[in-house]
Amino acid sequence: LKTDHVTPETAAGHAKVPTGPRPVGIGLVGAGYWGRNVARNFLDCGATELLWLCDLDESAAARLVGRRSEVRITSELDKMLADSEVEAVAVVTPPRTHLEVGMACLRAGKHVLMEKPLATSVAAAERLVATAAEMGLTLMCDHTFCYTPHVRRIRDLIHSGELGELQYIDSTRVNLGLVQSEVDVLWDLAPHDLSIMDFVLPPGLVPVQISALGADPINVGQWCLGHLTMPLSNGALAHVHVNWLSPTKIRQMVFAGSRRMVVWNDLVPGRRLTIFDAGIDVTHVEGDERARRMVGYRLGDSVTPAIPESEALAAVVAEFAASIREDRAPLTDGRSGLRLLRVLEAASMSRRGHGALVPLELDGRE
Amino acid sequence: LKTDHVTPETAAGHAKVPTGPRPVGIGLVGAGYWGRNVARNFLDCGATELLWLCDLDESAAARLVGRRSEVRITSELDKMLADSEVEAVAVVTPPRTHLEVGMACLRAGKHVLMEKPLATSVAAAERLVATAAEMGLTLMCDHTFCYTPHVRRIRDLIHSGELGELQYIDSTRVNLGLVQSEVDVLWDLAPHDLSIMDFVLPPGLVPVQISALGADPINVGQWCLGHLTMPLSNGALAHVHVNWLSPTKIRQMVFAGSRRMVVWNDLVPGRRLTIFDAGIDVTHVEGDERARRMVGYRLGDSVTPAIPESEALAAVVAEFAASIREDRAPLTDGRSGLRLLRVLEAASMSRRGHGALVPLELDGRE
Amino acid sequence: LKTDHVTPETAAGHAKVPTGPRPVGIGLVGAGYWGRNVARNFLDCGATELLWLCDLDESAAARLVGRRSEVRITSELDKMLADSEVEAVAVVTPPRTHLEVGMACLRAGKHVLMEKPLATSVAAAERLVATAAEMGLTLMCDHTFCYTPHVRRIRDLIHSGELGELQYIDSTRVNLGLVQSEVDVLWDLAPHDLSIMDFVLPPGLVPVQISALGADPINVGQWCLGHLTMPLSNGALAHVHVNWLSPTKIRQMVFAGSRRMVVWNDLVPGRRLTIFDAGIDVTHVEGDERARRMVGYRLGDSVTPAIPESEALAAVVAEFAASIREDRAPLTDGRSGLRLLRVLEAASMSRRGHGALVPLELDGRE
Amino acid sequence: LKTDHVTPETAAGHAKVPTGPRPVGIGLVGAGYWGRNVARNFLDCGATELLWLCDLDESAAARLVGRRSEVRITSELDKMLADSEVEAVAVVTPPRTHLEVGMACLRAGKHVLMEKPLATSVAAAERLVATAAEMGLTLMCDHTFCYTPHVRRIRDLIHSGELGELQYIDSTRVNLGLVQSEVDVLWDLAPHDLSIMDFVLPPGLVPVQISALGADPINVGQWCLGHLTMPLSNGALAHVHVNWLSPTKIRQMVFAGSRRMVVWNDLVPGRRLTIFDAGIDVTHVEGDERARRMVGYRLGDSVTPAIPESEALAAVVAEFAASIREDRAPLTDGRSGLRLLRVLEAASMSRRGHGALVPLELDGRE
Repeated sequence: LKTDHVTPETAAGHAKVPTGPRPVGIGLVGAGYWGRNVARNFLDCGATELLWLCDLDESAAARLVGRRSEVRITSELDKMLADSEVEAVAVVTPPRTHLEVGMACLRAGKHVLMEKPLATSVAAAERLVATAAEMGLTLMCDHTFCYTPHVRRIRDLIHSGELGELQYIDSTRVNLGLVQSEVDVLWDLAPHDLSIMDFVLPPGLVPVQISALGADPINVGQWCLGHLTMPLSNGALAHVHVNWLSPTKIRQMVFAGSRRMVVWNDLVPGRRLTIFDAGIDVTHVEGDERARRMVGYRLGDSVTPAIPESEALAAVVAEFAASIREDRAPLTDGRSGLRLLRVLEAASMSRRGHGALVPLELDGRE
Repeated sequence: LKTDHVTPETAAGHAKVPTGPRPVGIGLVGAGYWGRNVARNFLDCGATELLWLCDLDESAAARLVGRRSEVRITSELDKMLADSEVEAVAVVTPPRTHLEVGMACLRAGKHVLMEKPLATSVAAAERLVATAAEMGLTLMCDHTFCYTPHVRRIRDLIHSGELGELQYIDSTRVNLGLVQSEVDVLWDLAPHDLSIMDFVLPPGLVPVQISALGADPINVGQWCLGHLTMPLSNGALAHVHVNWLSPTKIRQMVFAGSRRMVVWNDLVPGRRLTIFDAGIDVTHVEGDERARRMVGYRLGDSVTPAIPESEALAAVVAEFAASIREDRAPLTDGRSGLRLLRVLEAASMSRRGHGALVPLELDGRE
Repeated sequence: LKTDHVTPETAAGHAKVPTGPRPVGIGLVGAGYWGRNVARNFLDCGATELLWLCDLDESAAARLVGRRSEVRITSELDKMLADSEVEAVAVVTPPRTHLEVGMACLRAGKHVLMEKPLATSVAAAERLVATAAEMGLTLMCDHTFCYTPHVRRIRDLIHSGELGELQYIDSTRVNLGLVQSEVDVLWDLAPHDLSIMDFVLPPGLVPVQISALGADPINVGQWCLGHLTMPLSNGALAHVHVNWLSPTKIRQMVFAGSRRMVVWNDLVPGRRLTIFDAGIDVTHVEGDERARRMVGYRLGDSVTPAIPESEALAAVVAEFAASIREDRAPLTDGRSGLRLLRVLEAASMSRRGHGALVPLELDGRE
Repeated sequence: LKTDHVTPETAAGHAKVPTGPRPVGIGLVGAGYWGRNVARNFLDCGATELLWLCDLDESAAARLVGRRSEVRITSELDKMLADSEVEAVAVVTPPRTHLEVGMACLRAGKHVLMEKPLATSVAAAERLVATAAEMGLTLMCDHTFCYTPHVRRIRDLIHSGELGELQYIDSTRVNLGLVQSEVDVLWDLAPHDLSIMDFVLPPGLVPVQISALGADPINVGQWCLGHLTMPLSNGALAHVHVNWLSPTKIRQMVFAGSRRMVVWNDLVPGRRLTIFDAGIDVTHVEGDERARRMVGYRLGDSVTPAIPESEALAAVVAEFAASIREDRAPLTDGRSGLRLLRVLEAASMSRRGHGALVPLELDGRE
């Protein structure tokens, strides 16, 4: 009598030999903390081939790839761009360099995967989007969270109508964070919440205004905590709380709809999503001289779906390669990065206006 | 435009005028803490009429019913039993009095609801059960937890086959408890776990042995913590941990089956049950010269069912009245109380035998 | 060898025979849900004597007190006020009646305990406060939460300096609530958060502006969810989220200071408060040509203090009686109720101004 | 004005250049999953120098060290042992090989770090311990959990007397585990709980008996769940529940003492330990004709200490090197591995004896 095993690990499988189209030749700019993760995923992905690593600090780049690596090292972007085997470039450099590096890559005919935010202004982002369009190149934003299975599930729940009509969104992203001197907490943390919202909202539903209020109680010259409040086009309300000063870490987003509510608590591996079937039902009763509303309360089961954990960045690089080979827009294309910048700029405008609601023009979102 | 409301409270409804059979005339013996709860529920129940309250301390009884009450007070049991309007008696007195009081009631032709445990020995419990059977009277045990909606749901999950074949049971009932000098922690707390097990196990599945180990680390002359381990007739294993010394309170029972597992955490109102669809699937593969087993792992959703909260004791008194009027055995009849005592006595025997497994004879359970 | 017990219950003690000054004669107006709780606490309090219960529905009042009660019943307020034994009146009626009933009581020379909110407008509240002052009478607001041991502990932590300088406050009060047609969610729920903030903030620290944004996604004609954001006079920021539409119930307030943070989760009996010793330390370093800031991170223990549970309303009625007998302002006097109305009116003004910050004038707070 | 940062990461520091004694030359046997972790930690440790990697599968060993590594590869143990620069060997092979490999290393004059369990029988373990003693060599067991900061804190709490007299231990190690055909769940999982207990118990306090009960409800030929119950020499009781079939994962140990209780929940990073200051105080009152006991209840604060996370295996290899250079017994020496095997063998004996208590002889523990 023998016992064989299929363990969760073996069942999950491992990198397969690529059987699809020719791998996309990749150049990577930026050998920092995040660049290391991006490089690892390009190396592990069957649909990509990492050819170059470019960093002003060549020794950092050399350390990243290791001694016997086939990946070529350079501190000169032009040298890498001159290699015709490089079809696409991933840019993982500080935001202030995104415009210049991105434009150079696009002009050299390379597809671009850009670290978030796409640029430091709407105007710069528009130039990148327009140039990519003119050149017929893919411009993809690394909105990493959109590639987690949990955010994709939330998107499915909303798009399929399972949540019903969205009523409110509440996002909390707080912890003891790295206080920064160049950007405030809104530009540092809120891109995550905002790009997720952009990704999961159904076609036609957009935030139409934004109010930003915050504080710098430790006098570092930047908001260390902030609240974004955004009326949506259907009458719902979205709220985002970002905070560098919280001793407790919270990573939670709530999407409440007329039929269901989903809570995403990103700190509970294996049980990150919970779907609540409870809420208020409003029934319009036609009657004699006046219509009436009946408000009923519904208390149903809650479900924690089984969602296997996977690395979002692996899905990012796979989507980048697939969108290039299939000649289609990636899930988070340049326009999503542009919309994010429109929201961030409007938030900064509201900040200067002491929290006054600033209109958002997010047309073009399908 | 007007808005009407159906709130959770109004939807739950209130005591209705009884429209069923004639209410059962009730005498209650015992005006202590639990007697007060029992009295309140007899008064609130449309199917019962509380006629007498009997306690050696008449003034305690008088305080319990209040000044203008119609309920008659006495310290003499016989006086109450002589009232022909009293059809049934609830006994809420210390266990050592159960045999004498219960026999007096049964001999007077009264149905009996007995506080747990039914008696202090199997022999005494057998006399009560036999006498009730001879007299054709209802003998019901107040195994209160069996009347919570959560335990009934667990019973349904098991009896319907939804959990599959039971594999193990694990119960934890620990807190900073009242250290007692007359009974040990097994007799004090484990009746809850054991009566619940008796209630939810499917027909034919019984514990077949019991081992009891415990300790008295604070030297009060009684076990203050104990572990009961019980092999079941299908090869599963049940374990119960009871403890008076735990600074943290835990009230948890796990029923793990081959298809589902249910966890009952009684300290989380509104979310007391969680059903896990995860486990190990063993497949027997017929092959060449030898059979093989494939062990597979299944990770599914978990569900927290919506179960309205309700008072178990209200269901106890309603079941008592219904079983009398419908001339049927109550859900927790005298035999369930007798089985509980068989387990407790075997546990005590195992205690004296230093944890050796003692066989259990729980025949007669359908 | 005998074992005696001091159980948590007996140790907590019970109502003592009053040995202090003569009990305060009380009239109660309002026999509804909350009136029932207030009545019970006046009856249980050794420092008060409940003499009258007044309600337009005399039969409701009669049911509340029971048949053999000494408490007199009336539907005529004047009759009750004419009784010279009535020294003080508790008003537990709908807010729109507070001004008229309160003024009648004060003019009749009675001290007043007013259910929150004190009135429906600042102007009305000012009349009540001014009249009480003129008449030399106590006017107390039933800001019940301020009398929980947990809020008092938070107040102590802040006033003693243990939290350090307040940096932000974040309050969440959401659940599936009773959707109301007369008041919005701000006026319904936020009085709790705002009165608690008023109670615990140290002398001199006040909110200086308020922004209110909300939504009515189910079209009942009132905001069903709302966000209040309030800059404080020291540069900190307070935020309150109230919501009738949340399937999950949350009752949480966070007070973050430069030295400690306290989190109050009111749904976890026995462990409602947690104090975190973690945060960011900013050190100003004097140097050569320019000052610099060092930002350091501190990760310390967290503590859940043992705080015995007690009924807040018992402390409310005791404080009412004590403030009358000691001829001093109660902890939550009319001015605290007036400040609450100033904030609520400013919130409504901000609502009409689409979330624009509205200045708050909360002078007079010591 | 400039802002410098000391982040939690930079504050934690990085591997320093070793300034201590000459690094210990290491040979590693076993290139599997755990061997990979051990190798990484020997490479990262300033006090060790990994010289050889030995595995029957040379290609697996080669993959582990990488192409340009200085670490030599062999499939022949003798070749590695012949290298006089190898002072010590870490054995990370299946338990059935421990005796042979370990004896070969010791006879070659090498110190040995042995993966748990030390051997597959007490007799084999005794030979290893005796041989190491004769040769004057270090024999250390890789009881990894003992090198977590949390277990060390628990040990400190117990040894310092802060917990008071131990009253009970309760350990739960359950999850959906890899069902094994060679060993049962006791030999697979309980070594963790038992080696931790051995490590933290104060001098002189030992388990004196053991009872083992378990079940194989899925018919794989091995116990898939088991309960160990162990009376301790001071009257306390330890209990261990190990289980391969639980859909929910629990890793919890409770150490309850007369003064404090510590709960270690290993699945909550950053808050793994909680210390409860609550319990029962028994006071012996000398009186007239009989002594009496007063039982009092104490409810105090609970504390979650800030304990930085660190990799236990790094501490294991550091302790191995330090114990060699300082010529002292390591924290978990061969005798601790021997005691573990005595408990496991006694558990197996109790299993064969249907749970009967089997005496433990754990003398020699200081």
